[in-house]
Amino acid sequence: MKRARVVYKGSIYKAEEQQGNIKLHNGLFVSEDDIEWLPPIEPGTVFALGLNYSDHANELSFKAPEEPLVFLKGPNTFTGHRSQTHRPSDVTHMHYECELGVVIGKQARNVKRSDAYDYVAGYTIGNDYAFRDYLENYYRPNLRVKNRDHSTPLGPWFVDASDIVDPMNLQLRTYVNGEMTQEGSTKDMVFGIPSLIEYLSGFMTLNPGDMILTGTPKGTVDTKVGDEVVTEIEGIGSLHNTIIGDDEFIY
Amino acid sequence: MKRARVVYKGSIYKAEEQQGNIKLHNGLFVSEDDIEWLPPIEPGTVFALGLNYSDHANELSFKAPEEPLVFLKGPNTFTGHRSQTHRPSDVTHMHYECELGVVIGKQARNVKRSDAYDYVAGYTIGNDYAFRDYLENYYRPNLRVKNRDHSTPLGPWFVDASDIVDPMNLQLRTYVNGEMTQEGSTKDMVFGIPSLIEYLSGFMTLNPGDMILTGTPKGTVDTKVGDEVVTEIEGIGSLHNTIIGDDEFIY
Repeated sequence: MKRARVVYKGSIYKAEEQQGNIKLHNGLFVSEDDIEWLPPIEPGTVFALGLNYSDHANELSFKAPEEPLVFLKGPNTFTGHRSQTHRPSDVTHMHYECELGVVIGKQARNVKRSDAYDYVAGYTIGNDYAFRDYLENYYRPNLRVKNRDHSTPLGPWFVDASDIVDPMNLQLRTYVNGEMTQEGSTKDMVFGIPSLIEYLSGFMTLNPGDMILTGTPKGTVDTKVGDEVVTEIEGIGSLHNTIIGDDEFIY
Repeated sequence: MKRARVVYKGSIYKAEEQQGNIKLHNGLFVSEDDIEWLPPIEPGTVFALGLNYSDHANELSFKAPEEPLVFLKGPNTFTGHRSQTHRPSDVTHMHYECELGVVIGKQARNVKRSDAYDYVAGYTIGNDYAFRDYLENYYRPNLRVKNRDHSTPLGPWFVDASDIVDPMNLQLRTYVNGEMTQEGSTKDMVFGIPSLIEYLSGFMTLNPGDMILTGTPKGTVDTKVGDEVVTEIEGIGSLHNTIIGDDEFIY
């Protein structure tokens, strides 16, 4: 099942996908033109991975880390499918990052990697934009890089774990204005989903609704005001976002 | 006014301090023996400062940063007054950190430092324990250092901003088993409260309930299982915590 959260006539609805159509939880089928997409989940704690694909680490002239490089994202950063993300005029590098989002389904503590998928509720797509001007080093990034308002589109769908045969073998692709600029596979993660759940649950509790954004492969490029950015993951969906400038940005 | 959140007979109550006594929001006065303290607020996004007192930076053999060194804390980390914090047996350095918590009262964007106090609702005390084994460098810390369950006691009180004449001139002290081991003043922050609000609100929105833990002065020492740690800030209160070992820890 693919699930979403949408706004229709001023109210928030849970929705699901049925044969390519959007069905609200009250049974009404609606056109995409009549809704606005919200992030498909309201995440709890959100973990994001830095340099979790070695080709991307190389691209930034860093070596891949020996321990998962994890940082937290604040709730102000999330926005939905077909939303707009602000490129401030004082920024010189704004990179999209197509990432598989792994959503926790039950409380997890000291989970072994062999049991890790028992704790996964499902998946979504995150575009974890980076404002690279402020990336000083290899380590966890400055909040100015990764915590700006509306800088992390999520969605459109939350896809049940049972619908994804092998989450460690999914193609990721990003298109800027229709041209493919990034391509990779989740099989190239440095730390795969089971390792990440083992790692994090080994020193803290993961709760239902928490989400891990698992990092991005090689192929991030600078984006400009007006660009249409589509981040896509096989079996999960296509997440659309538009870059806007200072004059169009509403908080 | 000093405000708290407490559990009394299985229910959560807002409470306030009246002449040294605890009054529930229904008017009932209760004994401290009959309640459990929760964090005095349910914080939204929590920002924590690294190395925001230059004497503490020197103590760790780092130089003070030129830009506020800010990282986020997850909701799993917070616990109340008189709670217990776990020292895992595989950790060799566990340091308390007495910190002034600044709670945001209204939505803040692009706030000038001269207006910053208009956006402050009040103050509390945080003991932002650090598990220093995993502190690789000068930059934002590993989650294993700063994001373990129940590792950040808050409280006991949230104190209204109007009750604190000068939050940039408050004494901080920590006592371990009754002996004073840390002493400093908020006047020695590298980046003061107005600068921090100007900095953060300059690239993201701060919302009511968000909190800034403003860093700790010199004097952090290793704590052991069984230690009673009291972090105290002038005019705000005294926050008590006990260190427990693996066998006593309940998530």
